[in-house]
Amino acid sequence: MALAERWLATRFNRPGHDIIDHYTYAIVSDGDLQEGVAAEAASLAGTLGLGKLILIYDDNQISIEGDTDIAFLEDVPRRFTAYGWQVTESIDGNDIDAVASAIDDARADTSRPSLVVCRTVIGYGSPNKAGTGGVHGAPLGDDEVALTREQLHWPYPESFTVPGEVREYLTKAVERGRGQQSDWDNTLSSYRENFPSEALRLQDALNGALAPGWSSGLSGLFDDGRAISTREASGKVMNAISDAVPNLIGGSADLAPSTLTILNSEGHIGPGNFDGRNLHFGVREHAMGAVANGIAVHGGAIPYASTFLIFSDYLRPALRLSALMEQRVIYVFTHDSIALGEDGPTHQPVEHLMSLRAMPGLVVIRPADATETAVAWQAALERTEGPTALALSRQNLPVLDRETLAPAHDASRGGYTLWESEGSDPQVIIIATGAEVHTALEAARTLDSEGIATRLVSMPSWELFDEQPKEYRDAVLPPSNRTRLSVEAGATNGWARYVGLDGASIGMSTFGASAPGGVLLEQFGFTAARVVEEARNLVNGG
Amino acid sequence: MALAERWLATRFNRPGHDIIDHYTYAIVSDGDLQEGVAAEAASLAGTLGLGKLILIYDDNQISIEGDTDIAFLEDVPRRFTAYGWQVTESIDGNDIDAVASAIDDARADTSRPSLVVCRTVIGYGSPNKAGTGGVHGAPLGDDEVALTREQLHWPYPESFTVPGEVREYLTKAVERGRGQQSDWDNTLSSYRENFPSEALRLQDALNGALAPGWSSGLSGLFDDGRAISTREASGKVMNAISDAVPNLIGGSADLAPSTLTILNSEGHIGPGNFDGRNLHFGVREHAMGAVANGIAVHGGAIPYASTFLIFSDYLRPALRLSALMEQRVIYVFTHDSIALGEDGPTHQPVEHLMSLRAMPGLVVIRPADATETAVAWQAALERTEGPTALALSRQNLPVLDRETLAPAHDASRGGYTLWESEGSDPQVIIIATGAEVHTALEAARTLDSEGIATRLVSMPSWELFDEQPKEYRDAVLPPSNRTRLSVEAGATNGWARYVGLDGASIGMSTFGASAPGGVLLEQFGFTAARVVEEARNLVNGG
Repeated sequence: MALAERWLATRFNRPGHDIIDHYTYAIVSDGDLQEGVAAEAASLAGTLGLGKLILIYDDNQISIEGDTDIAFLEDVPRRFTAYGWQVTESIDGNDIDAVASAIDDARADTSRPSLVVCRTVIGYGSPNKAGTGGVHGAPLGDDEVALTREQLHWPYPESFTVPGEVREYLTKAVERGRGQQSDWDNTLSSYRENFPSEALRLQDALNGALAPGWSSGLSGLFDDGRAISTREASGKVMNAISDAVPNLIGGSADLAPSTLTILNSEGHIGPGNFDGRNLHFGVREHAMGAVANGIAVHGGAIPYASTFLIFSDYLRPALRLSALMEQRVIYVFTHDSIALGEDGPTHQPVEHLMSLRAMPGLVVIRPADATETAVAWQAALERTEGPTALALSRQNLPVLDRETLAPAHDASRGGYTLWESEGSDPQVIIIATGAEVHTALEAARTLDSEGIATRLVSMPSWELFDEQPKEYRDAVLPPSNRTRLSVEAGATNGWARYVGLDGASIGMSTFGASAPGGVLLEQFGFTAARVVEEARNLVNGG
Repeated sequence: MALAERWLATRFNRPGHDIIDHYTYAIVSDGDLQEGVAAEAASLAGTLGLGKLILIYDDNQISIEGDTDIAFLEDVPRRFTAYGWQVTESIDGNDIDAVASAIDDARADTSRPSLVVCRTVIGYGSPNKAGTGGVHGAPLGDDEVALTREQLHWPYPESFTVPGEVREYLTKAVERGRGQQSDWDNTLSSYRENFPSEALRLQDALNGALAPGWSSGLSGLFDDGRAISTREASGKVMNAISDAVPNLIGGSADLAPSTLTILNSEGHIGPGNFDGRNLHFGVREHAMGAVANGIAVHGGAIPYASTFLIFSDYLRPALRLSALMEQRVIYVFTHDSIALGEDGPTHQPVEHLMSLRAMPGLVVIRPADATETAVAWQAALERTEGPTALALSRQNLPVLDRETLAPAHDASRGGYTLWESEGSDPQVIIIATGAEVHTALEAARTLDSEGIATRLVSMPSWELFDEQPKEYRDAVLPPSNRTRLSVEAGATNGWARYVGLDGASIGMSTFGASAPGGVLLEQFGFTAARVVEEARNLVNGG
């Protein structure tokens, strides 16, 4: 969120018109600061110098299993100093004046993020449980609540009460907020008058709206028909729409030269420099996902985050939050199968497509070629209600010939008949995704030449397909036809959803191996010959 | 690994007999030290004082996207000092004497882990690419290889050569190793003579063998029939076998009071104290999984790691490595569905069972009650060829009455007919897992009373079921019977594997919500009435 603020301020503020100007506060616990994602994010914030980010550290030295000294003896202030943060001296978190004064100090230094270290007492006021793990996850209980009320001189007998003086005090906060809102509205009016076009752009950015015709740069982009990987196609798409979608910002966890996600005409955001649109996240996948969520929640920019598909595991908790919070975050996952080759099984995703498809609220798209990649990016940007994950190939793939095959736009329905034998109803339906569509297409044509009527369904996205009306889905996959074969270089767990108990699935049942991609595809059975054989067996009731 | 060494040394060494005594070295890069998991693990190592752990930091200041100063400006030595590590002064990593001397210093301090900071040059010797990102992920190319050979005065023209002097030098290392092995063998002989029973126990521990009759403590454990959660049952199982499996060690990521994974008669491992068998991992799920892998790879102990099922996302990369490395790591994941209640959707797993099932080499078991939990633990411990994940309930569940139902041992087959209508072949087969087995059992009996012949299959583990012979699987799920209904409080994606295109699945298609568990189960349709209705619809061809 602090990054979004700095980026928008750099982009939209004008001398005397600080239309974007706020601090970002977070209250963090001992537990939060033990998590790796917090370490990654803090290191990145320190590197970038996000001076308007302020963490208030609720240091009560208690965790669920007991005092923090059982597992957390580190010197947190020293660690944050190492990250390049301003760290205040430890203060008493129950001393309101001390906290206010420390926050003032934190605000004064806008070149470094700040950690305000507050020593606190968990369960403050409870005579028997304050300062113990017993109050971390469990309620105090009636007796201890009564004793706590006594110790805190709380005279109100009801369970929930807002005393008059509290209400009065908080009313002042409401008034203060109204005043600040009105000040900002004035700033905005003046900004609108002086910088009308910037104001319009800012409004669009904050609304998350896409400009009319934003995708026109995509038409004909791949007409040269040159075989390219879908990661390369994705990079071309991003650059083709970059000007028309000026609030698209993002980057990679130190893999941009491989994920091809750089906006070439834009600069890189770096320490103290927020002028570009490309981010270097460092080798910090989890923080990357969390930062993307922060940008999306803040508003004003559409974030994308990129790494190899295998490393989606590293940011999975953040991706889940994108989905749960219904945020438009675009995940660009490349190197999407064993076909990535020599890096071997530590880098080869197998179960990832299926495990991402299991997540509610996430749309997964694995395009078959450059033209489907353009459709995928379009769907991702237009999907304002949640995140989208693109799974893209490392290896080059032919561009599907849209003269003889179904139009690329059909891919927006998630699954569509790409090609089928002429004349009779299909005897077998092959369903494939991504790179395997090409293998399946070759197989389908072979089967056709053998007299087996075949339909090939390209299914880049289960979620988009499942959203279609039943009539459409039944037209693509007629319920009466149970001779179905799925082909995808990943775990088959789940494909029964489309192929049923009478169909078959070609996929991965083990981890991959280290060898050139082509060799692996052959060895693990992703060949047209194997697809033909399995399809033939199905047709023959095998 | 360093933790395993200290634990085994504490347990087995005797005065004058340091049978376990080694250092653990790791070479780490700038990228490694940006990852959150490394931060978590380093903080824990510092807290515990793992003084024989030595990281050699290959600080070449280059990452794939460029110089590390684009994204990594932190003061790494200072950060490690904050963790409580010994940090050597930065040395020239190409100065062999300086490195050797720094390692000697690192070894000398056995109270703190050590970071040896080596400034290095990536692509050392390459005249044009040394010290640049260009040499990080791509080969030098023929021309630059030739220039590098020249600069390094490497006179051998072949691509791969081992010159005589190198061979000679390395032969000395082999001899040194032989000497060290022989020294250790002597130590072992002497240990065996002086401490024969310890030596036997050590041998068993290093072999990973379970003592004969190790599971005898489990018989009758739940005969009182008291309804308990499967997490509580798991805790009882662990404690019942704790003495018989003395090398079982592990803990939780600060949730032990909730995951119930404490071995009650054993102490806690803590700073400078390696005498117990319970570990406090802190709020560091990813490091927990990585540490468990290290213990398993080291040998001598069987590690378990515990957290809520939702947080399996945080350690997923480590879990995948358990599977890829075929290590016996037992993951105890509790709070396994929306039924956990008020903590709400951030804590409620939905897609997790399915996404774990997609991972090759991992066995997932979701027991229906205490008796299946005992079988699950038995399967996990006996599975030496890979990890097992247990998914356990927060809420209490009845103990299945094994007098009237199938024996608990059948659960070891992964799926089994728990109960069915007498007489005729089933008109409908209900397949359920975990807590939902009880709901399904009530529904099955209701359907039976309505005259609909029903079979209830409890399927705690897909992987164990799929390993069974076809005859067994076909007996449980007769291929001719397609009237099948699955019931599981998780994503349904994947259940078509067993229910096919003609069956149905009751599960979750969205995230959960915050409310008491019982209310959620009712609202999301996990009731006997709903199961009856869906089953009836299927039977009536609905």
